[in-house]
Amino acid sequence: MALDPSPRLELHWSHKEKGVARAAFDSALARENASIKREVENMLQRSSEPSAVWDVLEFLATKQREIERKYDYRYSVLTGVFARLLAEAWVTEKDLVGLGAEKLELIRRGAGTVRELDA
Amino acid sequence: MALDPSPRLELHWSHKEKGVARAAFDSALARENASIKREVENMLQRSSEPSAVWDVLEFLATKQREIERKYDYRYSVLTGVFARLLAEAWVTEKDLVGLGAEKLELIRRGAGTVRELDA
Repeated sequence: MALDPSPRLELHWSHKEKGVARAAFDSALARENASIKREVENMLQRSSEPSAVWDVLEFLATKQREIERKYDYRYSVLTGVFARLLAEAWVTEKDLVGLGAEKLELIRRGAGTVRELDA
Repeated sequence: MALDPSPRLELHWSHKEKGVARAAFDSALARENASIKREVENMLQRSSEPSAVWDVLEFLATKQREIERKYDYRYSVLTGVFARLLAEAWVTEKDLVGLGAEKLELIRRGAGTVRELDA
């Protein structure tokens, strides 16, 4: 399959695909929030210093900016968003079952690129 | 005792008083931080929602602004600072033993005013 050089603009999302995408997106966000929550609980448990709360504040403020940048539910950028989420294991291939082959391929390739860049 | 209308400018802090003030100030801050930490732990325990971390972020950001405003260790404003901390029970009269009678009186009166304003 030859990839369109600007595939984002070309993709059509069917009603069914939109349902799959929304569920996968929401699951990923819930998983990542749950992970942040566990990390905060660990930070508080590890430290006996009352001032540890200010480390928590800084950690959460950073995470919020990261989450806001990452979780962008616009169809024009959504395969790129899922690529990152797949690379970071917040979504699995199973979550994406029901998306068209072209989209899945874009997401997988994108995930590979993200992994390389993050390595 | 007649209170000077601008007593803050007149107060001299002895070396011993500075030591008492610093210890009382630091204790109050540690108590208030510990209380904020407990509140955060309770918020996280009460809620099963992963998104509860964002309520924690908002709570901590508000508390940080409040703490920064309240804990101002300049001798020119320190009796007023202790008045609020006494009114809110972050310092006790016992913590302030060693301060001069004039300062204690200013702090007690100020605490009364703060309680009235907050009531």
